[in-house]
Amino acid sequence: MRKAYHDELDRIAESLVDMTHLAASAMTRATTALLDADVALADSVITADADIDAKREQIDLLSFDLLALQQPVATDLRVVVTSMRMSSDIERMGDLARHIAKVARLRYPDSAVPPELRSTFREMGQVAELIVEKCGSVIADRSIQGAREIERDDDAMDDLHRHLFEKVTGGDWKHGTEAAVDITLLGRYYERFADHAVSVAERVVWIVTGEWGHEANGSHEDAEDGSGGDTAR
Amino acid sequence: MRKAYHDELDRIAESLVDMTHLAASAMTRATTALLDADVALADSVITADADIDAKREQIDLLSFDLLALQQPVATDLRVVVTSMRMSSDIERMGDLARHIAKVARLRYPDSAVPPELRSTFREMGQVAELIVEKCGSVIADRSIQGAREIERDDDAMDDLHRHLFEKVTGGDWKHGTEAAVDITLLGRYYERFADHAVSVAERVVWIVTGEWGHEANGSHEDAEDGSGGDTAR
Repeated sequence: MRKAYHDELDRIAESLVDMTHLAASAMTRATTALLDADVALADSVITADADIDAKREQIDLLSFDLLALQQPVATDLRVVVTSMRMSSDIERMGDLARHIAKVARLRYPDSAVPPELRSTFREMGQVAELIVEKCGSVIADRSIQGAREIERDDDAMDDLHRHLFEKVTGGDWKHGTEAAVDITLLGRYYERFADHAVSVAERVVWIVTGEWGHEANGSHEDAEDGSGGDTAR
Repeated sequence: MRKAYHDELDRIAESLVDMTHLAASAMTRATTALLDADVALADSVITADADIDAKREQIDLLSFDLLALQQPVATDLRVVVTSMRMSSDIERMGDLARHIAKVARLRYPDSAVPPELRSTFREMGQVAELIVEKCGSVIADRSIQGAREIERDDDAMDDLHRHLFEKVTGGDWKHGTEAAVDITLLGRYYERFADHAVSVAERVVWIVTGEWGHEANGSHEDAEDGSGGDTAR
């Protein structure tokens, strides 16, 4: 019984790590689809999002059954409760990658990204890819240091996001309103993707330290306020 | 012991309903601050968001202790698990109201909303106010019918959001890129506010019916895809 119980706990953690790989792949392909105006790649991201959703449902069912049947306490209880929240964060990251893919598809055969912003989006994509892969390691290793790194990566994303807003609202924007709307939403999607990674990191910190508090609750508003979402406008 | 246990379950539900009142007040004031360029009102929304965050933390702690000490099963377990998710949705709704207030403050003494879009934002504010108040009733009564109503209200929000995007990207936009960026993000904030209300409604449906599934998991992507967030661009 206890053996099965710990196998289930391990299975939940493994499934969460799998989810981060799926989200990383989605984000990488979404960014490429966006920059290359590759509609087939965009469609593959949109279709594959269902796998991330299914994974999340599986994790939530497993976690719920474990709560009901095994009634875990202490750290195990924190792990199960937190898993249900991390699954929600990572699923949302997949949704955001899908939104990016949808913008790419919408603008096909053009790219939604003007030439002078390509490198910024490439960097945002790289930070996003890196940050979600780090989520996987942090979940697997429960590494506090890894969690702190994720917060620094999020700061880098916020800087890129701010740069984006400065370009769009800087006065010499030549690409019209529709492109401005696209860039605004795309920037928001990348920024929120990183915010959810920080939430995952904070939840791992809570598992390890048992410390609640605003940040451990995962609302992660401070970094978000520091981002283009608020201050860059 | 069991008496205390059920008192705690009731307290969690009451706190969630309190949270919906706080979020409703935040959204109402944020919309007024936006339309009237009332910076004092905007600041009050930004300050009061801490109360919503504190309420969420209180609910999560209470729920976690209840899981640890009372080990609820069946419907009670669904209630506790769901409460931790609803608290997260409602806190996020408060964050979105705060984001709207921040745009109002940023554009003061001007209003971020051009004259021809005032009525649309007034309506979005009214739908948002209504939908979060309904969340409170649905949580209190566990009303499936109320949950369905919330989904219809969200459709109304999606229509308003779509209208907004048509205005901004319609070609005869005269207010410049910065205003377009503001309207894009503001529209997104109202739309996401309603999406989280739908998530709350779906979680209540799950408590009552025990039915999981994509929507009950609260990712609520279909309605979001139907909204300006994707299709109106």
